[in-house]
Amino acid sequence: MAGGLVDVEAVRRTDYGTFTWRYTERDVALYALSLGCRWSQGRFVYEGAEGFAPLPMFGVIPPYHELLPSLPLHRIVPKFNPMLLLHGEQYLELGVPFPTAGTLRTSSRILDIQDKGKAAVVVIATSSIDEASGKEVAYNESTTFLRGAGGFRTAGPATAPARRRGATTRHALPDRPPDAVVEERTGEAQAALYRLNGDYNPLHIDPEFAALGGFDRPILHGLCTYGVAAKHVLLRYGGGAPGAVHSIKGRFAAHVFPGETLRTEMWLQPPCTVLFQTRVVERDALAVTNAAVVFREGGLAAAAAKL
Amino acid sequence: MAGGLVDVEAVRRTDYGTFTWRYTERDVALYALSLGCRWSQGRFVYEGAEGFAPLPMFGVIPPYHELLPSLPLHRIVPKFNPMLLLHGEQYLELGVPFPTAGTLRTSSRILDIQDKGKAAVVVIATSSIDEASGKEVAYNESTTFLRGAGGFRTAGPATAPARRRGATTRHALPDRPPDAVVEERTGEAQAALYRLNGDYNPLHIDPEFAALGGFDRPILHGLCTYGVAAKHVLLRYGGGAPGAVHSIKGRFAAHVFPGETLRTEMWLQPPCTVLFQTRVVERDALAVTNAAVVFREGGLAAAAAKL
Repeated sequence: MAGGLVDVEAVRRTDYGTFTWRYTERDVALYALSLGCRWSQGRFVYEGAEGFAPLPMFGVIPPYHELLPSLPLHRIVPKFNPMLLLHGEQYLELGVPFPTAGTLRTSSRILDIQDKGKAAVVVIATSSIDEASGKEVAYNESTTFLRGAGGFRTAGPATAPARRRGATTRHALPDRPPDAVVEERTGEAQAALYRLNGDYNPLHIDPEFAALGGFDRPILHGLCTYGVAAKHVLLRYGGGAPGAVHSIKGRFAAHVFPGETLRTEMWLQPPCTVLFQTRVVERDALAVTNAAVVFREGGLAAAAAKL
Repeated sequence: MAGGLVDVEAVRRTDYGTFTWRYTERDVALYALSLGCRWSQGRFVYEGAEGFAPLPMFGVIPPYHELLPSLPLHRIVPKFNPMLLLHGEQYLELGVPFPTAGTLRTSSRILDIQDKGKAAVVVIATSSIDEASGKEVAYNESTTFLRGAGGFRTAGPATAPARRRGATTRHALPDRPPDAVVEERTGEAQAALYRLNGDYNPLHIDPEFAALGGFDRPILHGLCTYGVAAKHVLLRYGGGAPGAVHSIKGRFAAHVFPGETLRTEMWLQPPCTVLFQTRVVERDALAVTNAAVVFREGGLAAAAAKL
């Protein structure tokens, strides 16, 4: 059954607006605490600490302030149901280091809409510019699964997909035990806290919405799991120094319930990459796969020396 | 040795300004989470939940936004040292129920400055008015201990102390076992989170400042302990319905380290009062004493019926 008409070319050409977000040191600290950073990790959670700076993963946050909530997906994708939306993949590229507080202007493009049969896949690219310097601090490519929204017709001739900065190829993991492993239990209230970063989807706190989404109870935000896993990599290999990270990518392979234990396995791939995957220990389910932190030249070694 | 001159009458007459604070549902939810509310306690932590409202104790927060940080205590009290400041007592009186978001105007008076020998005691009263209704939502009397700042001279004739709304008399606890007991372990990162409500005193996160204040490690905010304890009373006896509470008072008898367990013992005193005290289980130290939640007429019974 055809589910309606999508004019992919027209969508790709549409400008969905630019949104301004002013953030403070409080937002930076709250983000780190919502990833389970400890009070003693002052650089991430305490504005008075030496070297205080946003974690690189903070770069996924700006689009949640007005931009993503205002994207008219219900007008773009027939049969769109926000309850059935799931985050599929995230590619984050860091530009100039984040100020500890500032004003960002974020704009977006929809790079692609794909029909996967049962689901539609939407790839959204966002660019966040620091108003003070005029430079890009963060670029995101998010792949979103809209369950139940596949089977549509497309208008116009098929064209080549838009250029993507994030590689979509799968990483093969080395055939050896991980070089490093970090395990961390998430908090029962972690999704309730994480949502205060700006992603207020009730799937993550409201049992009724979770049930409509097909889950026994509210699930953790994919980007929270992603942030916790990237934190594991940074603490082991990078130390989180501003400017040390080029990009962070990951695929959300399974949901995580708040309170479950995340185990991140890492493989160093010289000169600059750490491949990783993250598993829910209690259910032995892979939650994040095809994931990598790419450090800038020297970023990995220089930061690792500080450990 | 005289430590300088304080003109108590002049200080009492001084208007220290009115400060405006705009808060959102995010601030309300963050406050509740920083008191250890669970994700499933939607009424306190989830803006989409039925009956979502600020906890009554949220009323202690508005003065921390600009007003208290701007009070020129260093000009008022000779030998004032912010590292040695400790919170002594808090009396909070609730007016019209808090909106879930809004703009408050808070003004203050210094009601009294007392010389206690080693310490100076300053009593600060603040009144927070909802800009939309023009009505008072919260009134606070805070007693602050300035260690090392006693032994000053006073100017002018001694006059009667300013009128205080909060009773300074000690409550005798009934000679029977508590009617209810609630125990809760605080989180290691709880002070790091609580400070994001607006009290950024580094004593609560910076080990060097904690050492200057005489503590082995950062301590929990007195008002965080107070909030956790009041939450225990509300969950047991009041349910936290907006408008149900008239006032909440407590004395900070000992510090609490984040991660320690708080045990709140309660005695129902009909018709409207619950007396309580809160103990640090690990050190068997009383942290909050001379404490009471006073419900409005019918507030206690009506709310308790909902349990």
